[in-house]
Amino acid sequence: MGIEHASGNIAKCLRLQLYDKPGNLARVAAEIAKQDIRIGDVRLVRAGRTHNTREIVIYVASNEQLEDVIDALAVLDGVVVEEVTDLVQKIHEGGKIATRSRVEINSLSDVRKIYTPGVAAICKDIEARPELAYQYTAIHNQVAIVTNGTAILGLGDIGAVAGMPVMEGKAALFDRLVDVSGVPILIQNYDPQVIIDTVRSIAPTFGAIKLEDIKAPECFEIEDVLDAELDIPVMHDDQHGTAVVVLASLLNATRFSGLMLRKSVVGVIGLGAAGMGIGKLLASYGVNQMIGTDLDAGACERFAAIGGKPCSLTEVMRDAHIVIATTGCPKLIAPEMVRKGSVILALSNPNPEIEPELAMESGASFAADGKSVNNALAFPGLFRGALNIRATHINDKMKIAAARCIAKYAEENELVPALLHPEVHQAVTAAVERAGLESGAIKPW
Amino acid sequence: MGIEHASGNIAKCLRLQLYDKPGNLARVAAEIAKQDIRIGDVRLVRAGRTHNTREIVIYVASNEQLEDVIDALAVLDGVVVEEVTDLVQKIHEGGKIATRSRVEINSLSDVRKIYTPGVAAICKDIEARPELAYQYTAIHNQVAIVTNGTAILGLGDIGAVAGMPVMEGKAALFDRLVDVSGVPILIQNYDPQVIIDTVRSIAPTFGAIKLEDIKAPECFEIEDVLDAELDIPVMHDDQHGTAVVVLASLLNATRFSGLMLRKSVVGVIGLGAAGMGIGKLLASYGVNQMIGTDLDAGACERFAAIGGKPCSLTEVMRDAHIVIATTGCPKLIAPEMVRKGSVILALSNPNPEIEPELAMESGASFAADGKSVNNALAFPGLFRGALNIRATHINDKMKIAAARCIAKYAEENELVPALLHPEVHQAVTAAVERAGLESGAIKPW
Repeated sequence: MGIEHASGNIAKCLRLQLYDKPGNLARVAAEIAKQDIRIGDVRLVRAGRTHNTREIVIYVASNEQLEDVIDALAVLDGVVVEEVTDLVQKIHEGGKIATRSRVEINSLSDVRKIYTPGVAAICKDIEARPELAYQYTAIHNQVAIVTNGTAILGLGDIGAVAGMPVMEGKAALFDRLVDVSGVPILIQNYDPQVIIDTVRSIAPTFGAIKLEDIKAPECFEIEDVLDAELDIPVMHDDQHGTAVVVLASLLNATRFSGLMLRKSVVGVIGLGAAGMGIGKLLASYGVNQMIGTDLDAGACERFAAIGGKPCSLTEVMRDAHIVIATTGCPKLIAPEMVRKGSVILALSNPNPEIEPELAMESGASFAADGKSVNNALAFPGLFRGALNIRATHINDKMKIAAARCIAKYAEENELVPALLHPEVHQAVTAAVERAGLESGAIKPW
Repeated sequence: MGIEHASGNIAKCLRLQLYDKPGNLARVAAEIAKQDIRIGDVRLVRAGRTHNTREIVIYVASNEQLEDVIDALAVLDGVVVEEVTDLVQKIHEGGKIATRSRVEINSLSDVRKIYTPGVAAICKDIEARPELAYQYTAIHNQVAIVTNGTAILGLGDIGAVAGMPVMEGKAALFDRLVDVSGVPILIQNYDPQVIIDTVRSIAPTFGAIKLEDIKAPECFEIEDVLDAELDIPVMHDDQHGTAVVVLASLLNATRFSGLMLRKSVVGVIGLGAAGMGIGKLLASYGVNQMIGTDLDAGACERFAAIGGKPCSLTEVMRDAHIVIATTGCPKLIAPEMVRKGSVILALSNPNPEIEPELAMESGASFAADGKSVNNALAFPGLFRGALNIRATHINDKMKIAAARCIAKYAEENELVPALLHPEVHQAVTAAVERAGLESGAIKPW
């Protein structure tokens, strides 16, 4: 029960009134710890004459556990539980993104510039010289974040609308990290052709297309067709964003463990979007011994087509120096399957195939889960860089450049840097720009 | 030449260095006036020991006229023209809108709430109870602004991308006036079916659809089909936004001139999107003597189908108490055609069918152009109100309520209030909400 509880990640905020006496906060903290619950921020909200009000963030595994800790605190002397808030719900209230004006509109004269009659001159300029759209509109900075909701996180096919919080999260990160305007586009449809036709129709609005959480195998066809047809980059993040961060992680992991990535046997467990994206990028990087496994025969065939060797889960765990799992199956990898000295990335969110701590205890030389090997390290700089140079594609050279750059910014003994590292996204942007220009991923204009 | 020049509306900013002596600014202003050029803001940028730097906004009709005035100023003693900027180009630099995060992302703990793993709980909540999407996503606040670029302002078919500055202008006003997220969607296609299919596909992303600057007759089919199929409001602004503001204007104009709107003969010149929208709303309001004219036979047929009587331009000008022109033809209405005491709204942008001053001089009791009768008075409150009550349609009762409300906020002797009037958009929102609820324009939830 201890470990189960301590892995809780539902953030709740307890608002407590505490009798102001040294030791009372310690008693509260101790009581929370007794329930195997982690504590986050502790904020002094109000210092009264006899009582203080504090907000304490705790991470619980279930509502049941929350009830337990509230009951336990309520019986303490001098402690009143005033209110309990779900912080995740609270931050989502009203949605996480908005379209904002970048210009001040304070007078009629402002209106006459941004709207009629002034705007007509800009429209005519663009009609005469289409490339001015890059200068005078937001198009060059807008990335469509397109999903049909069939593979949202590890949750599967929950529908496009239920996937919107993830799309908004990506858009919020785009804004925060690289000043890109992410525009969620929800298409509630399973037919790849409908998604292709729809994205093709709206493509003039955007500088790039980010496909998101669309399940395999449809995601492959959708990306291939759109990337071939459109003259702006089209990238399926679950394949390539993940692949870039995985490659970055492996560049460091192999350095730590004395392996040479290109000469290692790499095992890929789960050959869906992420697994295939990883396989493709590693092949492009120069890894030529890839084995992999999936319950789906079609997935195994696709893996063979990119040079991988399909085999069983047992064989992958036995033979691979490096294991990358993206199955969505928590605890798929039993501790006794871990090969000594191997590197294991168990990437399914929110629950990995094996907990990193357990993998390390079982003999892995390095292990990480999807929380640290986060594809949000890659997509901001990949798209920002591609937009900056008006790339027509995000090619493998750009992805590998991004991976090398991400790897470089990792702290000692870490596989990748923190997501909010103050420099990494700008550095990735610059690396992607350079690689794109050198590899000719742009159209003449 | 005088009138031609004085109607200039290209905003330029002259940065001048002036020898600091009383009267020098007056000489500059007089020289600008001599060229028949209007002056906007005058800003003292730097007060030096012997010289001042001022920025003077002027409105010119052409680059030629700009050159002339610069030359004229340059020969004045103690005046140096340092720099000339196009203010409209400047404000459009980089685009006018951006997608922004509504939430702070300053720590790993923030990321874990808005993104994995925290976001998964919200996705699951919405999957289980779809109506929670209104609470926890931005969908309820997003309006797609859809165009195919075939009828941008009065410029005609300049293409969807060249129309983007107008779409961004609408989105910027949405943000500024009613906190709605406008999301431009550019579809470079003439086929109504493609536009219908595309909008249907992406509709789950939005709380409402605003069709914009799509030419007649395609706009009618597109709106009719989408409004019937989708359970969110679909409104073509060029038809109905314009119609609402025209109705508001007429409510005041008829009051001033002692006419009774419902008993007046209303003449509609130009039976495209705007003309038809106006005709439909006036018929719904209770006007039953409508005459109209258009060069296109199909347009006249459609007008007859809503109860109007097609006739010639001469007949409209002779018989109508109230004339509304939306033809895109500058100077179509000659002064001698104006019926004494008539109300004339010459709405084509940027150049009206007859200048309001000229219409008044020729005997009209009231006249206005598209700059004052601006559909941006209507659309913000119409959509905000509809979103607030989760309306499925924006029906005629809601439009008429909006028109009455707009009319009420006009200053004495004005047809409509100023676009940036501090209360009108909130008042329209409330009026639209009430009318929508009373007329059952909502779905049960």
